[in-house]
Amino acid sequence: MVAVKKIGNQTIKLLNPPSIISTASIVGPKEGQGPLAKYFDQIIQDDLFGEKSWERAESKLIKETVKLALKKAGLHLNDIDYMFGGDLLNQLMSTSFAARDLGIPFFGLYGACSTMTESLALAAIMIEGGYADNVIATTSSHFSSAERQFRFPLELGNQRPLTSQWTVTGSGAVILSTKSEGPYITYITPGKVIDYGISDPNNMGAAMAPAAVHTIKTHLEDLAIDADYYDLIVTGDLGEIGKEIAKDLIKKEGVNLSNKFTDCGVEIFDPKKQDTHSGGSGCGCSAVVFAGYLYEQLKLKNLNRILLVSTGALLSQTSFHQGETIPAVAHAVAIECHLSN
Amino acid sequence: MVAVKKIGNQTIKLLNPPSIISTASIVGPKEGQGPLAKYFDQIIQDDLFGEKSWERAESKLIKETVKLALKKAGLHLNDIDYMFGGDLLNQLMSTSFAARDLGIPFFGLYGACSTMTESLALAAIMIEGGYADNVIATTSSHFSSAERQFRFPLELGNQRPLTSQWTVTGSGAVILSTKSEGPYITYITPGKVIDYGISDPNNMGAAMAPAAVHTIKTHLEDLAIDADYYDLIVTGDLGEIGKEIAKDLIKKEGVNLSNKFTDCGVEIFDPKKQDTHSGGSGCGCSAVVFAGYLYEQLKLKNLNRILLVSTGALLSQTSFHQGETIPAVAHAVAIECHLSN
Repeated sequence: MVAVKKIGNQTIKLLNPPSIISTASIVGPKEGQGPLAKYFDQIIQDDLFGEKSWERAESKLIKETVKLALKKAGLHLNDIDYMFGGDLLNQLMSTSFAARDLGIPFFGLYGACSTMTESLALAAIMIEGGYADNVIATTSSHFSSAERQFRFPLELGNQRPLTSQWTVTGSGAVILSTKSEGPYITYITPGKVIDYGISDPNNMGAAMAPAAVHTIKTHLEDLAIDADYYDLIVTGDLGEIGKEIAKDLIKKEGVNLSNKFTDCGVEIFDPKKQDTHSGGSGCGCSAVVFAGYLYEQLKLKNLNRILLVSTGALLSQTSFHQGETIPAVAHAVAIECHLSN
Repeated sequence: MVAVKKIGNQTIKLLNPPSIISTASIVGPKEGQGPLAKYFDQIIQDDLFGEKSWERAESKLIKETVKLALKKAGLHLNDIDYMFGGDLLNQLMSTSFAARDLGIPFFGLYGACSTMTESLALAAIMIEGGYADNVIATTSSHFSSAERQFRFPLELGNQRPLTSQWTVTGSGAVILSTKSEGPYITYITPGKVIDYGISDPNNMGAAMAPAAVHTIKTHLEDLAIDADYYDLIVTGDLGEIGKEIAKDLIKKEGVNLSNKFTDCGVEIFDPKKQDTHSGGSGCGCSAVVFAGYLYEQLKLKNLNRILLVSTGALLSQTSFHQGETIPAVAHAVAIECHLSN
């Protein structure tokens, strides 16, 4: 027994790549006014989603998104072996309560906004290793529950600096299966926790950019490929500022990303029209952009190979108040329409 | 490609069982005065561990425990492919900061006090599936950082009801490897999130007992074995009250656990002498009891087969204030000294 699926320093090659057979995305009103609106399955008109608190609304987002992904795949809840997921709320409140109501064996994950690719990575391993037939990976975030927890009560109307990002309200769910129909998850590069000493919680893009760069560079080196192997390399939620920093940093590392690099946080909003400053963020950001927009591009073969690199800033209110800097992590998952040898 | 390693409803059979080649445990002063004191590698005399905050102390506990487990195995940090872990603090503050300083690719997990077996389960899969050669699973908790976050400032001197438990200060680390020398992880039963409607955060044992019972019963059914297959079935941190509830509930389900059932939270303290009320709790509880006491019993062959079932109460301060009940989860991991066919 040896690690035959490990290549390079920290990459996993999935020898029997699992298929992504279904995705679903439900977003909030603001996301429904953004440039990707037509790719989301459902746009809720009230961010309480008929519930009495934002946290309950976020939990309902996950439940409804999971059910929708199942429906689109023609599967039922009891066809799913395991659920991997997480959110930004303390003690994964929204995902835990959703997992309770869904009744699927549950692995709770926390990687801040990197959780979508953490979840996809582990779900893919469960399928590829022969441990499960169908696994669901899901994450969520909610602007109002996140602001309440991490920043200030919304009622205060605090001003947001231009470096700040707008937490996406939404949930994305992805069903992975042993069925061979593609698109496939082919490689996984789990990230190291990287900290360049940024301590401003209103500039998380800058804190996360070095982690994204580390993971992308390691991935390309482990596979001995150039960035243009992919049609698109897409980070999670660096936002406008973080994306520019990442481009600069990776250029210094001698990697040319040219025009094949973007960021889910940049794509989801129109910052000028929507007043979202540096762009979108939150676990839900890369979740809905992948489950909505990117998955459709893969199915239509407009994109054939992408590297999804969700990025997470691992700060807490306590770490901030104790003067700690912001460590960050980025996990990469390669998704390809066709299998090479 | 089919799920050949799945048996029954929700159990995984590891066909090439990974070995636990090393463990380490470091605990706080109170744990060092309890009945298991002699089994821990190190007992710190000051719960600040030389740091300026409890949170930093907890992070140091993880770092030092990981380093100690490596030293005992004759391994170095760069021999470890991946680290799985988590803690009770918001945004996994102590584990995230430890992962940053250790520099090992990191999967952050949150399963409340069930995180030790969640971590062991996923680490075992990484080894068994051929994705890694050495993986570390670790969790921590700290009485003072947990009280500050979940309850009241310690300075208030609030009275604790008799149903309450005492969060263990400590960290346990376990190294899993492709080396075949045992003890081995042979089966995994990831848990469903179960909620019987308990809403008292000072009676977490009662909230967690139904989840433990569900997972144990499912595990025994999936393997078609009786409880006496194991020398010991040991839950994570139900405490005295939760343990009695679990015994009653599982008896009603027609399962006889006889005298082979105990709980890490019951074993770690002497409630009468140590004023710990219903017993120990926290992510660190089953981590240090397993890494310290139980692993030694397996190495000495005093125990040959155990089922470790860490138990987690998935509440948050917000869920409590919003009047929600307490969902719970329990993940089971079977550990055996010898491999049958």
